[in-house]
Amino acid sequence: MNFKLLIQYDGTDFSGWQVQDNRRTVQGELTRVLSLLDNREVYVCGSGRTDAGVHAEGQVANVKLIKKFTPEKLRNAINGNLQRDLRVLKVEEVSDDFHARFSARGKTYLYRVVNAPVISPFWTRYAHHETRPLDTERMSEAAKFFVGEHDWTAFSSAQSDSENKIRRVTDFEVSSRYDERAAAQIIEFRITGEGFLRYMVRSIVGTMLEVGRGEKDFDTIQRAIATGDRKLAGATAPAHGLTLLKVYYE
Amino acid sequence: MNFKLLIQYDGTDFSGWQVQDNRRTVQGELTRVLSLLDNREVYVCGSGRTDAGVHAEGQVANVKLIKKFTPEKLRNAINGNLQRDLRVLKVEEVSDDFHARFSARGKTYLYRVVNAPVISPFWTRYAHHETRPLDTERMSEAAKFFVGEHDWTAFSSAQSDSENKIRRVTDFEVSSRYDERAAAQIIEFRITGEGFLRYMVRSIVGTMLEVGRGEKDFDTIQRAIATGDRKLAGATAPAHGLTLLKVYYE
Repeated sequence: MNFKLLIQYDGTDFSGWQVQDNRRTVQGELTRVLSLLDNREVYVCGSGRTDAGVHAEGQVANVKLIKKFTPEKLRNAINGNLQRDLRVLKVEEVSDDFHARFSARGKTYLYRVVNAPVISPFWTRYAHHETRPLDTERMSEAAKFFVGEHDWTAFSSAQSDSENKIRRVTDFEVSSRYDERAAAQIIEFRITGEGFLRYMVRSIVGTMLEVGRGEKDFDTIQRAIATGDRKLAGATAPAHGLTLLKVYYE
Repeated sequence: MNFKLLIQYDGTDFSGWQVQDNRRTVQGELTRVLSLLDNREVYVCGSGRTDAGVHAEGQVANVKLIKKFTPEKLRNAINGNLQRDLRVLKVEEVSDDFHARFSARGKTYLYRVVNAPVISPFWTRYAHHETRPLDTERMSEAAKFFVGEHDWTAFSSAQSDSENKIRRVTDFEVSSRYDERAAAQIIEFRITGEGFLRYMVRSIVGTMLEVGRGEKDFDTIQRAIATGDRKLAGATAPAHGLTLLKVYYE
């Protein structure tokens, strides 16, 4: 049976999604537990990797098991063997051809920034702290340049393993709201696309932060996208502000 | 100079507010840092204690310092010497007679419950997990019995050090909302009063949870309040669901 898993994790204490020797990873933890339950080594297929420190509110994976489980029993059996920073919220039985990575049609990432002199202890693990004032309206305007099908060479790692750097960003919204728990403004960068390169979202957000501080103009962004020149893009924003929000399937 | 501090802490790794030998406490951390800054042993006066594991989004304290600081400099100097689970959000210079405890007119506590089969990793430190369905409407109705001036013997610790168990609860609201991050319903118990006994909020919430599960009727609550019989009250709800939200001053 093929099972689709809806997964959340606090990325703080994980070395990312992908299995690595002697490191605690999300895929590693799920593989350990599901192999235990199915009494053999299973392969847990994720919609995509997340880097060390990145969180997920809606990661999706699938796994094929020989043993029979009801979705609810499987969910409870998995969670019973995990630490509480990793949880399977939902299990569904799906058709054999469902593949968490190849069947995915798009993803939404959320990057949170607390823009205030002090960051609340309740957000310090989940949001980047920027003390300098950010111009949300200016960033909102700049966000439009990133929407569309572009070559993202300037916004990806030089050691990226993808040869094709063309991806389509379908939506990019920047908004600001007062958060009671932070007792401060939280700026949210919400970006949706068909696919993303490694570090692409964090590099785009890092560039946007420079726009928000008035250090980068719109022309530079347009040239970065057009030329693929990494020097024109901003610094990569820290991992802990980033959350994989949702993965879309047909 | 007398300074009023607005403080937030994630209570998970603290043995509560009050200074204790060989334990990490909020008052202990603030005393260490402020004594360092004022070059002598200072007394940090809180609005009241919070128990081990209880959080604060709006704790208030005051401290008298001999050295001169601007509020902003003091705030930054304190935060620079603290771990990130404890933060001073705001510092104000106040008159000499301001006393965080005696000047307080009331407090609001918030108790959060995730009412779903699975609790999100993003709420597991800050909300109690109840898998059995809770009837919010029934709890809302029951909340009315707790409002007013009552003897809270049935809802306080037997070893309480307060002789006078009479306190006035001015407001008690129970509400339920869908939380995106939890991907589940969060039930919030918001209670305001002029003062609270030790364990009082957690004991009231524990009683309410029994009401919400249909295990306790309204008559029992009324008798508990009227007679002070602890056997009629519910179990004390766990500390980590509780947050001190606000302290009121004139």
